[in-house]
This record gives sequence, C-alpha cells and structure tokens, in this order.
Amino acid sequence: MTEEIKTHLQLRRVAIDTYKENVAYLHRDCLVYRSEGFQALSKVEIQPAGDGVSVLATLNVVEDAEITAPGQIGLSLQAFEQLGLPEGTPATVGHAKPPESLHAVHRKIAGQRLDFEDYVDITHDIVANRYAKIEMAAFLVACSETGMEREEVLYLTRAMAASGERLNWHETLVADKHCIGGIPGNRTSMLVVPIVAAHGMVIPKTSSRAITSPAGTADTMEVLAEVELPLDRLDEIVRAERGCLAWGGTARLAPVDDILISVERPLSIDSPGQLVASILAKKLAAGATHLLVDIPMGPTAKVRSQAGAMRLRKLFEFVGDRVGLQIDVIITDGHQPIGRGIGPVLETRDVMQVLQNDPNQPRDLREKALQLASRILEFDPDVRGGQGYVLARDILDSGRAMDKMNAIIDAQGRNEHTYALGRLSRTVNAGHAGRINAIDNERMAHIARLAGAPMDKGAGVDLYKKVGDSVDKGEALYAIYAEFDADFGFACDAATADSGFTLAP
Amino acid sequence: MTEEIKTHLQLRRVAIDTYKENVAYLHRDCLVYRSEGFQALSKVEIQPAGDGVSVLATLNVVEDAEITAPGQIGLSLQAFEQLGLPEGTPATVGHAKPPESLHAVHRKIAGQRLDFEDYVDITHDIVANRYAKIEMAAFLVACSETGMEREEVLYLTRAMAASGERLNWHETLVADKHCIGGIPGNRTSMLVVPIVAAHGMVIPKTSSRAITSPAGTADTMEVLAEVELPLDRLDEIVRAERGCLAWGGTARLAPVDDILISVERPLSIDSPGQLVASILAKKLAAGATHLLVDIPMGPTAKVRSQAGAMRLRKLFEFVGDRVGLQIDVIITDGHQPIGRGIGPVLETRDVMQVLQNDPNQPRDLREKALQLASRILEFDPDVRGGQGYVLARDILDSGRAMDKMNAIIDAQGRNEHTYALGRLSRTVNAGHAGRINAIDNERMAHIARLAGAPMDKGAGVDLYKKVGDSVDKGEALYAIYAEFDADFGFACDAATADSGFTLAP
Repeated sequence: MTEEIKTHLQLRRVAIDTYKENVAYLHRDCLVYRSEGFQALSKVEIQPAGDGVSVLATLNVVEDAEITAPGQIGLSLQAFEQLGLPEGTPATVGHAKPPESLHAVHRKIAGQRLDFEDYVDITHDIVANRYAKIEMAAFLVACSETGMEREEVLYLTRAMAASGERLNWHETLVADKHCIGGIPGNRTSMLVVPIVAAHGMVIPKTSSRAITSPAGTADTMEVLAEVELPLDRLDEIVRAERGCLAWGGTARLAPVDDILISVERPLSIDSPGQLVASILAKKLAAGATHLLVDIPMGPTAKVRSQAGAMRLRKLFEFVGDRVGLQIDVIITDGHQPIGRGIGPVLETRDVMQVLQNDPNQPRDLREKALQLASRILEFDPDVRGGQGYVLARDILDSGRAMDKMNAIIDAQGRNEHTYALGRLSRTVNAGHAGRINAIDNERMAHIARLAGAPMDKGAGVDLYKKVGDSVDKGEALYAIYAEFDADFGFACDAATADSGFTLAP
Repeated sequence: MTEEIKTHLQLRRVAIDTYKENVAYLHRDCLVYRSEGFQALSKVEIQPAGDGVSVLATLNVVEDAEITAPGQIGLSLQAFEQLGLPEGTPATVGHAKPPESLHAVHRKIAGQRLDFEDYVDITHDIVANRYAKIEMAAFLVACSETGMEREEVLYLTRAMAASGERLNWHETLVADKHCIGGIPGNRTSMLVVPIVAAHGMVIPKTSSRAITSPAGTADTMEVLAEVELPLDRLDEIVRAERGCLAWGGTARLAPVDDILISVERPLSIDSPGQLVASILAKKLAAGATHLLVDIPMGPTAKVRSQAGAMRLRKLFEFVGDRVGLQIDVIITDGHQPIGRGIGPVLETRDVMQVLQNDPNQPRDLREKALQLASRILEFDPDVRGGQGYVLARDILDSGRAMDKMNAIIDAQGRNEHTYALGRLSRTVNAGHAGRINAIDNERMAHIARLAGAPMDKGAGVDLYKKVGDSVDKGEALYAIYAEFDADFGFACDAATADSGFTLAP
C-alpha cells in the first residue's frame, strides 16, 4: 500500500481505547514524522517487518516520550491487537493510500447511486479497520435519509450480512423477532421465545446488550441464566429446546454493523436505510427465515408518525422479500413504557409475573407479548390465520410457557447468584393531584441509566402509575433504585429536574 | 450544559496533538467513568471548579495510569490550552449536550435548506471547539456538492467571515488575488503584488503556508524576507509600499475555515460551495474590496472541465456580488506546472529571474503574472479597459516591479540568511526519445513534497523540460533536490515508480 520503503520504528502498545478507530502515535521529534511530512489526522500504514499484515491508522502527534518516544510507533488498543505482535517489533510507517472504496463514498457524496460491488467493497474495508471515523461519518451521512434508493438498502443489507459469519440451524422455518427499540421495559422477547418454542417452532433469539437503553434482552436474561454461549452450545440448546435467549456477540454476525454503530450513535444518525440494513443483515447472518419486526410509534418513541412508520414498514418489506426473509411488520403503541420495571432485575420480575400468571402482572406487557407471539405462530403453515392469539394465550395460561422458560434457563445454565434490587431507593411523587397524560420514554430511560442500569442489574425505575391513572398530590409515581451513592444522586437530580410524567389537573 | 453535579477530578495535560479536536482521557477504573455510563466517543463537558469556562471533548478511555490515572481527567493539548488552567485544577466531568447547532446539521442531512442564522450558529460552535471531528465531517458531507443552494454558500461565507477578526486598510480600493491551487510552481503573487503596488494600487497580500502543496506563497517569500508580521507592522508597510507579501496566520481571519480544513483535507472533500465560502470569507476578513480569482483548468488540475470551471466562476460571482466584493474570475491553463522550480528556493529563483528580466526567465510564469496583473490594474477606474496588460508589462520591463519588490522585502525585513539548494541532487532522465505530451501536476507536487519541500526550503524539483519539448533518450527531464538522505530516497523512488512525465515517441 505504501509507495516507498521506510525507516524502522519499534511497535509500542498505547493503552488508549479509541473505540473502533485505529489510532497511531508518533513523537513530534521522530525523524520519520519529520521526513515524511505527515500531518496530524494523516492516514498512515504500519507494516511490521517480515511479511505480516499491515494496519491503517489515523495519526496523532505526541510530545511526551512516556506515551510514545521518538523511534517508536504507538498504537491504540484495537490497532495493537489487530497486529497481534509483541511490543518492540520493528515496523515501518508510511503514508497510507486511502482505501479504494472511498472513491465510491465520494461518488455517493456527489449524489450518485452505488451498486452492489461498491457496498461490498466499502463493507470489506470498514471491517478491516481501514476507515477512519471521519470517513465512516462521511459514508453514513452520504447514505442517510435522502441519500439511498431502496435498491441500495438491499445492496447494503446483503453486503453487511456477508461481512461476517452466518449461522445455519438446518431447519426450514427459523423464526425471529426484532423491535426497533426506544421503549423502556419492552421486554417481550423473554415471553415470545418461550411461547413460540413451546409450540415447537424454532426461535434461536440472539440479542445485543443495551447500547443507549437501560436494558437489552441479553442484559435482562443474564439475571436468570448464562447468556454468553459458544455457538456449539447454542446449537445443542436450540436442538433440544427449540429456542434460546442468548447474547449475539459471541458470533461475529454482520460485524460491520457494530463498527458503524460506533459512529452512528454519537452522531445520532439513525436513518431508515441504515436501520433496515443493520437489522436485516444481522437476522440473515443469524440464520432466520421468518421475522417479525415491531415498530413502536409514539410522541417519544423512535418513530413518531404513522407516515414514518409506514415508510419504514415498506422498506423492511421490500428488502426482506429480496433477501429471502419472510417478514411481518407490526406497528405497536409506543406512547409510554411497557410493563412496570425499567432495568434488568425489575424487567425480569415483570416477565416472571406474566409467565406465572400472577394476578398482579403488568397486563400491557402480557397483551403485547401475546400479540407478537400470535403473529409469529401464524408463520406456521399448520396454524390457521387468526388462530395465533388463542394458541399463544393457551400456551401462556396453561403454564407451558413457564415450563419452557425454565427449560431454556436450565439449558443455558441457571444463575446460582440471585440479583437483588439496588440498595438505595426513593419514590418520585406527584406535585399535584391529577390524571397522567404522558410518560416520556426517553426521559425514563435516561433516569434509569443514570441510576446505573444496565451495568448494575438491580438499578432502574419501577413505575407505579401509567398513562390514564389518577393520582393524589404526593402520591408516588415511581421508585428509583440504585446501588451506588453517586448514581443515586444523579438519577434523583434528573428526576427532580424533569420527572418524565405529565399530569393534567 | 450538564444536567447534574459531578465528582471532582484533577486536570491533567496529555501531550497528544489531536489536531483541531478536543479529546478527553478517562481511566477505565475511574469512578466517574463507571458511574456515568460514558462510552468511548461520548461527548463530555469538562467544567473547572469556580466559574471558569467549560470545554467539550470527545472521550477516549485509558488503561494506563501513566497517561491518565483514576481520579484525573486528561485533556489533549488543544483542549488543555483552551482551558488555560494549571494541571491539578479540580474539574467536574459530565455528559455534554450536543451543541444546539447540530440540530441544523441534522436538518441539512435530511435535505433541508438552512438559513443564515443556522450557519452563524454552526460556525460559532465550531470555532468554540464544540464539534467533534465526526460532527464536522457530517456537516461537510451534508453541505457538499449536491447539498448547498448558492444562497446557502452566501450565508456560510458571511458566517465564516464574521467568525474572526476583520482588517480595515482605510482605503476605497483594496485589491487582492487568489488562486484555487493545484498547479506546482505557480508563484504569480510574488510578481503581481510588486507590479500592482508599483502602480500605486493597494494590494496587502496575505497568504497561507502550504497545506498539501510543496510551497505556498508565504513559504516562498520567507526565502527572501520576514513574513510573520504583527498587524500594526503590516499596516505601516502597506501604508508606505502599497503592498506586502505576508503570512495570513498572524491575524485570526475566518478561523472556522482552518478548523474545517483539518477535516476536509484528510477526507478529500473539496466541494465548490466550501471552496468559494472559504476563499471569499478569508478575503472579506482581510479587508479586500476587489478580488481576482485564478481557476487553473487541466487534466491534473483541481478543475478538470470547462463546465466545472464555469460553474465555479458563476458561484464566485454570485456570492462575491452579494458580500460586496468586486470579483473578476479568470480561467487559466492548468495542464502542467508553471515556471521551472517547484519548492521555495527554486520558485524564488524563477520569480527573481522574471523581475530582473533575465533572458533565461521562465516565459510562462512571466506571461501568466502579466495576465493576472493586467486584470487587477483594470480595477483602477483610471486605467482604460484593455490597457492593463501594457501597463503591467511596462512596470515589469522598466525594473519598477523589481524596485518595488526590493522595497517590500526591506520593509518586511530582508533575510540575512541565504537559503541554498538541497545538497543532494539527481536528475530524472527520459527512458526513450520523444516529445513530452503531459506533465502530471499532482505527481510533481508529490515528488517535491517527498524531497522535503516546503519544510526544507532548498528541496524540490527543477523542471528542465515542459510540454511540447522534444528529448533524446537519457536526456534529463528534471532534477530532484533534497537536504536529507531519507527524503532524497523517497523522492527518487517515487520518481522511478512514476516520473510524472508522459512521452510520445
């Protein structure tokens, strides 16, 4: 990749996590820095002596020999691990040619349509860590909202799905479900999977951990059972139980997605095209054949209008049909959190109440889970259209879903340790009497995160009231639970500043 | 900006130059990192104790206490200097709200038109270092090629011009010239300024140093005279001599431009809108009233088609008219380097040969300078249309331009030290006999830079042949000059791989 032969420097590990971007450090007085005319933010290529594979990195200039001395080439953690060589290994550093696929990104910026090959090349270079963050940002912006034809979303989906491993369950019908997110407490997978698996349909659910939410399905399931399972174990479990609730990170499914998310998230870019490609690529790679997509809609949800939800549904359907995924999209009520608990332990409690047919169970969570499960059950050719709901309800009411959940927990490895609720707690009370008009999903998620969720399993928010309930002045709206004093203080301060509840007198 | 009160950490200077981006470093074991749920790439706000001004920074997570220990908050050089406080100062760190103007960037990404206020807000936040690199990349891409109406280019120009200082020369006609760049050796300013100033017209030329080229006007003029002059000195010089050739960096003219360039350059984004706004904002801030813009066009120039040149010209005219700059745009021949030398010392030699009417002078440089100077002279209401050329030629031929150049050199401070050509040199020879069909501007610039230009004043390339010349096999096409062995090796290797010359048999 470089054009000329360079002087050797010594590799050095610089213990800085630059998060999905390779960064290289050169001392300002290093001869190589001087003679090469590098500039900060230059893209450099580090080539270890011998015939090792090189890495590309973005250059930062250092003035402290304790970090990187003249004669050394420092690499941030990811870049150092990518090389996989010991410190002190001689390496040359040269100007890196930008990855070839950046030409396609520039064409995209210029408003042109890219073809399948372009998306494959871009995906390939990103997975190989050849893109700097600003280059990924450029790609994402160029591909956002107005930028992508639906055919291009299809190309990107295919390219992303092909960027990593692909699971094969050796079944003709492999069901999956996905919610686009944004609604706290919405832990339906832990109900849908046991219901569907109890029916005998294969549903190997792999989930992510929370990124910006107070709990992901993986974080919550972890309260009950082991979720970090090697692929061969997963295969055994699904063969025996028809379903699982595992963390998806052990398989390298559509890895390009994780890298792009690292830039999308801080940029708050969440365009329909990227969303659809990201979800469908992961599901394809996970070996699904049938997929139910849940799009919650509401004023504080991710999708805020019927028109927006409909556009997104059409895009899911268009791409799904063409990649061979049978897709059913359901637009659900997203105007407030689902269930009562927000945070792993609290959400687990809600789920178990529903499975146990506890009279005190959150009815909205039960109803939503039945609604979703019924749609998945109807993927089964033997289930008559319209019979899914009754079937799902029977499985739940009869205790068969609970039995299946216990079987899955045992198969994955039941947690010996019982997680407790956070030791610190406080209620947040109504400032005046009235009727609850709205509960802000984003605010509740923020407060629960500040309290320590999902890192502290027992932290979070427990809702005592939902939209439509009436309260007296001083009556508790919800409780905050936390493990640590600092977290507790942050969450309480945030709730005081804005409780997330709107009361009409 | 932050929502909650945070635990105090101790400020620490981390000697890493992250180039126009504020970066903060927190140790992975730091309680604040843990409890805040920060993620790498999070935007954080560092608020020093007392009522100091806070800074925003992008977070990197550190695992080495030598770089930043738990209990400390490390800041990269720019961010540390921006705070201007001693190490150890207590400070709180919290989640930063994204800068308000990012909402406008998101509207731009969504394809909407922004108004003047939006551009002012964005510019303001960028100058205050509130944007991360990926946010600047998002803005630049959203505003590139297809993204900006010409009214928006006007808004951006005004906002950028207002982002820093503004010079006032107290003259009714202040001339300036600007070339959009890309042609090595094209050192016309050092001829145009003395010709125009000798006529009595005010032309206070401030130039940049080279960014990606082997020599800027400031780098080249520095061979002869002091160029880093305080504003009051510049004012005196221009009052006395009517012209100057100084470095523009001493004044903070349109500083947002320098920040955006730090992302544009590595991204190779160079959209017409950004280009026009960047140039005109700098010229407005520099106090120009009349501006000649040189757009070289050719197969290896920045602008490669007549249509592209024309579109760019119209955009310059549209914005120029509306910001009160009288603009004349000239499209020039950019199909090969101008003059013979490429690099500060060699280009100075060419300029002096033209000023001294040396019979061996590069005629193309002379002709181009006369052409440009004639257009500027015709800004003078007393110069009859079409008479500029004769006037410019008389000034040059009579030696008045040389006298004026000497006066300007003396006024700025004549260089005691004489710069020599690089001590290492080699000629690059024709592989076969033939006629020179093309010389690649980009390649010649690259070779000259590898040789050490502009950092080593005496380094560069001296062209012996130009397009249309015939050569025998083995005849020298050009010489490479360098000061250092490594540089010399890189440049020679590059010339061997591709000399930049195309010969037809």
